[in-house]
Amino acid sequence: MTTETSNEIFPKGVAAPSEYFTGSAWVKTLLPGDEVFNTVIAHVVFEPGARNNWHTHPGGQILIVTDGEGLYQEKGRSAQKLTKGDVVRIPPGILHWHGAAGDSRFSHIAINPGTDKGTVNWLERVTDEEYQAAG
Amino acid sequence: MTTETSNEIFPKGVAAPSEYFTGSAWVKTLLPGDEVFNTVIAHVVFEPGARNNWHTHPGGQILIVTDGEGLYQEKGRSAQKLTKGDVVRIPPGILHWHGAAGDSRFSHIAINPGTDKGTVNWLERVTDEEYQAAG
Repeated sequence: MTTETSNEIFPKGVAAPSEYFTGSAWVKTLLPGDEVFNTVIAHVVFEPGARNNWHTHPGGQILIVTDGEGLYQEKGRSAQKLTKGDVVRIPPGILHWHGAAGDSRFSHIAINPGTDKGTVNWLERVTDEEYQAAG
Repeated sequence: MTTETSNEIFPKGVAAPSEYFTGSAWVKTLLPGDEVFNTVIAHVVFEPGARNNWHTHPGGQILIVTDGEGLYQEKGRSAQKLTKGDVVRIPPGILHWHGAAGDSRFSHIAINPGTDKGTVNWLERVTDEEYQAAG
């Protein structure tokens, strides 16, 4: 192999909805929502430069980075660089986005507890200006 | 390297308590329990042959296998072989154990939702006879 070894723990999944993502991303559901666990889990792969829209989670979210280099930003704060093994704790209602660095793929597990309160509320796109300022 | 490439997403963590584990295992806490998420997350590495005691989770547990070859068994059922990317859904109150195969390390993320109900109730050790029958 000529490229960095990838973890490739999970299959890539299905294309993320273009309405809520800028660039290409892939979502593999690991645990669908149900009343027993009240939790949804997915693995998400972002191609370089890809990111999701600004959004909130009514029950909060935990990200666990599995590969690559990425970004996480809460509204009104500086973006945070993420790499393999990082854990991000996103409290309920916090407006934020996440995605890949401009020059790297990025993968994380996303864990959404408290799905009886809702899973996600999508808002506007992260503009190119916002994205470039973050990186 | 002469061995299979490991994911090594997380540091190994601290030694698992010998009271509840047979053989060597390592626990890295990824999300401590709190009232916001009501969820505890850890990464666990089992050395070959290591396993935890029979136990139950009052809020259930989800395992996500990150590396190696392992085993999962519910009381009264055949053991299930596990490999990278597998997800195990363990409902509340189900008596079970998990651990490494005899000839492989084994690593998983363990997600415990509903920790307001409790996290884990430990029971007796998995005997060598039970372990050998499972593998």
